[in-house]
Amino acid sequence: MMEKISIGWQKQPNKLNIQGTIEKAIELVTKQKVDLNASGRTDAGVHAKGQVANFKTDCKIPIEKFAIAINTNLKKSIRIIKAEEVEERFHSRLSCKRKTYRYVINNSEYGTAIYRNLETHIPMKLNVDRMNEAAKYFEGEHDFKAFKASGTSSKNSVRTIYKAEVIKMPEERIYIELTGSGFLYNMVRIISGTLVDVGIGKIEPEDIPNIIKEQKRELAGKTLPPQGLYLMNVEY
Amino acid sequence: MMEKISIGWQKQPNKLNIQGTIEKAIELVTKQKVDLNASGRTDAGVHAKGQVANFKTDCKIPIEKFAIAINTNLKKSIRIIKAEEVEERFHSRLSCKRKTYRYVINNSEYGTAIYRNLETHIPMKLNVDRMNEAAKYFEGEHDFKAFKASGTSSKNSVRTIYKAEVIKMPEERIYIELTGSGFLYNMVRIISGTLVDVGIGKIEPEDIPNIIKEQKRELAGKTLPPQGLYLMNVEY
Repeated sequence: MMEKISIGWQKQPNKLNIQGTIEKAIELVTKQKVDLNASGRTDAGVHAKGQVANFKTDCKIPIEKFAIAINTNLKKSIRIIKAEEVEERFHSRLSCKRKTYRYVINNSEYGTAIYRNLETHIPMKLNVDRMNEAAKYFEGEHDFKAFKASGTSSKNSVRTIYKAEVIKMPEERIYIELTGSGFLYNMVRIISGTLVDVGIGKIEPEDIPNIIKEQKRELAGKTLPPQGLYLMNVEY
Repeated sequence: MMEKISIGWQKQPNKLNIQGTIEKAIELVTKQKVDLNASGRTDAGVHAKGQVANFKTDCKIPIEKFAIAINTNLKKSIRIIKAEEVEERFHSRLSCKRKTYRYVINNSEYGTAIYRNLETHIPMKLNVDRMNEAAKYFEGEHDFKAFKASGTSSKNSVRTIYKAEVIKMPEERIYIELTGSGFLYNMVRIISGTLVDVGIGKIEPEDIPNIIKEQKRELAGKTLPPQGLYLMNVEY
């Protein structure tokens, strides 16, 4: 399990990325080239508090020493929080049962200087009760075609959301928390943008079932920026 | 009132600083050169959540428009939170009655990637009860000569601490909060370093009165790094 900031996950030539950076650190520890599989990619700007990735090695270093050994070879913008041995068939993405994302909004008049890369500032006053009412309509199994980035390959866009909640936090922050079987590309950021439209009164909570049903991207809200998004937890 | 990150307050030639940056933004709004007085300098790396600064102008823009007008001319790393008119004699530093600082420690095993510039990671387990017991000895009027950066001009090092508290927070964070009449250079960071020594058992809580009395810098703990320090509040 690991935590990272802002840099994208996927390996790209000549571009800073989490996957390649950790693979190199593991290589320094195990003296073996490894392939690191994450539970899913995270875009540049998105934060991960509980990302999970697996790799195979026959290195004999005791498992309880792995996290600290890899951290020693990483910059502080990536931290391995925990390492554990798993069965041969385990795959971080394919074995994943549930994921939880949090979207963090700062709803104060001027936003904050200190957390400006760690939240999205929305100065218009949001009605959290309305947003929470709307969030409940996302729960259950639906085709979320309207809530994926246009242009991304579709195949199957049916997903199950187990829990969708909008929570008022101290210092004028709002958390949007979604737990689901899996999420389409930009799905959390588009659902969050739609809930913001509900919060400012542009969309009614009861409109949500129809937006889901129509499967048209343009009926849903804007894609909110990446810096408010956190991958919180992956369950197996 | 304003919030800023990591850049130092004081004007220095050819160096990014908060004072000069805000003065320029104010000039763009008022069309007048101004001198901005803060309640005190903050070093590079230190964060301010509630810094206060004043300036004189005969600009006719209504006071309630000032914050938004200045913010428009500032990068998001500095935010004006509030602007208000004060009496002619008011001076942010000289009129100040009390200041509150918070020092934020992450006491988890590996620290965090996301907040690495916003807290100080100390992996050794700290005993918060002992630290809090020690903190109480700092309350009251004392000569804090042992708790200022060596080499800084002394004059009068007597200050009053109204409240000193160590608080256990969620996610293995610890807050050290000090409210006082004023603070010497590096005083909060040295007191925090001394409390950390108490937390790991190197210093006993009952040793504090003697460390204060002896007035020797070397008896106190280390100066903790700037990125854990927040100026929270200035009272007049």
